[in-house]
Amino acid sequence: MTTNPTLALTKQLMARASVTPLDEGCQQILIDRLTALGFVAERLRFGDTDNIWLRRGTAAPLTCFAGHTDVVPTGPLEQWQSDPFVPVERDGKLYGRGAADMKTSIAAFVTACERLLTEQPDYPASIALLITSDEEGDAHDGTTKVVDLLKERGELIDYCIVGEPTSTAQLGDTIKNGRRGSLSGNLTVIGKQGHIAYPHLAINPVHTFAPALLALTQEVWDEGNEYFPATSFQVSNIHAGTGATNVIAGSLNVKFNFRFSTEVTADELKQRVHAILDEHGVNYDLQWSLSGQPFLTGAGRLTEVAQAAIAAETGVQAELSTTGGTSDGRFIKAIARELIELGPINASIHQIDEHVNVADIEPLSHIYQRILQQLATA
Amino acid sequence: MTTNPTLALTKQLMARASVTPLDEGCQQILIDRLTALGFVAERLRFGDTDNIWLRRGTAAPLTCFAGHTDVVPTGPLEQWQSDPFVPVERDGKLYGRGAADMKTSIAAFVTACERLLTEQPDYPASIALLITSDEEGDAHDGTTKVVDLLKERGELIDYCIVGEPTSTAQLGDTIKNGRRGSLSGNLTVIGKQGHIAYPHLAINPVHTFAPALLALTQEVWDEGNEYFPATSFQVSNIHAGTGATNVIAGSLNVKFNFRFSTEVTADELKQRVHAILDEHGVNYDLQWSLSGQPFLTGAGRLTEVAQAAIAAETGVQAELSTTGGTSDGRFIKAIARELIELGPINASIHQIDEHVNVADIEPLSHIYQRILQQLATA
Ligand SMILES: [Zn+2]
Ligand SMILES: [Zn+2]
Repeated sequence: MTTNPTLALTKQLMARASVTPLDEGCQQILIDRLTALGFVAERLRFGDTDNIWLRRGTAAPLTCFAGHTDVVPTGPLEQWQSDPFVPVERDGKLYGRGAADMKTSIAAFVTACERLLTEQPDYPASIALLITSDEEGDAHDGTTKVVDLLKERGELIDYCIVGEPTSTAQLGDTIKNGRRGSLSGNLTVIGKQGHIAYPHLAINPVHTFAPALLALTQEVWDEGNEYFPATSFQVSNIHAGTGATNVIAGSLNVKFNFRFSTEVTADELKQRVHAILDEHGVNYDLQWSLSGQPFLTGAGRLTEVAQAAIAAETGVQAELSTTGGTSDGRFIKAIARELIELGPINASIHQIDEHVNVADIEPLSHIYQRILQQLATA
Repeated sequence: MTTNPTLALTKQLMARASVTPLDEGCQQILIDRLTALGFVAERLRFGDTDNIWLRRGTAAPLTCFAGHTDVVPTGPLEQWQSDPFVPVERDGKLYGRGAADMKTSIAAFVTACERLLTEQPDYPASIALLITSDEEGDAHDGTTKVVDLLKERGELIDYCIVGEPTSTAQLGDTIKNGRRGSLSGNLTVIGKQGHIAYPHLAINPVHTFAPALLALTQEVWDEGNEYFPATSFQVSNIHAGTGATNVIAGSLNVKFNFRFSTEVTADELKQRVHAILDEHGVNYDLQWSLSGQPFLTGAGRLTEVAQAAIAAETGVQAELSTTGGTSDGRFIKAIARELIELGPINASIHQIDEHVNVADIEPLSHIYQRILQQLATA
């Protein structure tokens, strides 16, 4: 039986219940493994969040792997087939919280460095890892703070690979070369409470909002472009009434979110929402929060090297995509010339019985290794 | 200082914290006072609800006063200027829970009987009181059960006066001679939960319901008629989402209510709602509950006698109205030839600092007395 060091390290990380913002010692394992290879480790704790910046070498180009040791909560434990923090192989899959998001890719990158630097101790470029323990939470004291620090000292990244699970059906079938922006609105429609038998004495906020709601759901915000799908508007929460069925509620709360392309700006979206609400005479208060501007790495050196590495290792032709949720890529792009996200299959992330294919683990490590090797060549 | 027996009895009843379905001995006070006048008392307890049927005489016509000893909860005690169960006079008003809804009218009817039967011990007609302790709750074991019993034994009412607070600006300005029907719907719009970043994999029930919501709020259900305002549709509750702002909810719950006139039937309204939902392709489950059919007592003997009594006592010309919430009148109408509701000013009912005008208390009793006297004449 051959040993599989990436699988072993993945399991070692998964055995730690590092639910956001806890790290539970995962980062120390990485420090131990990588300082042995000549990396210099900086622990950067902000608030309750553990972060590390590990770097080896000063020569250009600097290729950085970015990731997170924290995982989302397990959800109902009784629904798991096995303990989410006891990694178990079953039917060719490795089960446990963090399997796909994203302890496998962290382990794969570490062993990629180990093989690469053992074969090539005089690797002519620089490698770094930016690891946080708060990507799944509010991310306030995580990657964004480390990026601020690096920016301050002028430590810029040439190529960044974020290890988020981007593959859909087959390992390597999808590389994210950007992400849509995310803009959220917290809308309070102001009515006037009253008894349901006397509607003329009340203002029903559900009724006054109805025409604007329809208009918002029917609006075409843009058509997207080559890299981005059309901007999408979705209501996530709508609440009015305390349960009493004989009372017209005094207000209505609506939470909504835009995932937007580079064809519109957050300010344009805000203006258009206000215009629709005003046009329909809605009396409202609206709080905005911008979680991320859209960012994009066009097809170029990094995407080409990654596609070639995937093809060589798996025979799969990777597609570029900008769909899906936000990631810490939104912060790192500010200091990274080119940035992609590339990791295992994401079908089970944040779910009960999260898993990765065992057969994908070692190939992912080899893909990362090939990318590091190729980027160091002129 | 003149004694005011109606005020004294009102306070005695208000001092008892008879929050639905509790009676807290109120009904025993009525029994004691009225059996002394020759009434026969039947205690009718169903489930946790105390009810009484008190009757004096067998000769026609039978005039019945209907009411409830229960009161709605106080709400936040610290917002009351004084203890809601310690009746207090301030600035010409009597404050406390149940002042307007409806311990004053119960007391007024009892003292009306006392004066009437003292002056006229051989009163030639019959008088009854139907009192429940669950009008403000689900009313399951209250008036409806007593009505069933009376119907079974063929004990029918000629004239019924429900003591609900019907006056608006001045004592006696409004008599309710009917009530709209009340039909409620509990609608679940079925979508498909998903991540807000992948709306094409989800079905957002808020979005699929939006066109139907607008259509429902804009529909003209009828135009009402001489006695009834137009049928009204109101959403009381709308809820989707658990608070998470990155999740599209799997379903949407909407509670709505019709107050409907005699121009439509409950079945017609149901059919029209289903048609609107179907027309807009909504995937839904819908549970109906009919709390009351509309009922009406046209202008006639009882309304005329009541209007004359009010005019003689206060100089006010009472209007007939069918607006407002449901009352136990919806049950009693099944065994009562003519039925009205008549009581004190309702501006503060179910609210903090509920009150009646002290100066209205004795006149209300005299109005009831005049009605009893007049109805007994041929
Ligand atoms: Zn992740
Ligand atoms: Zn009442």
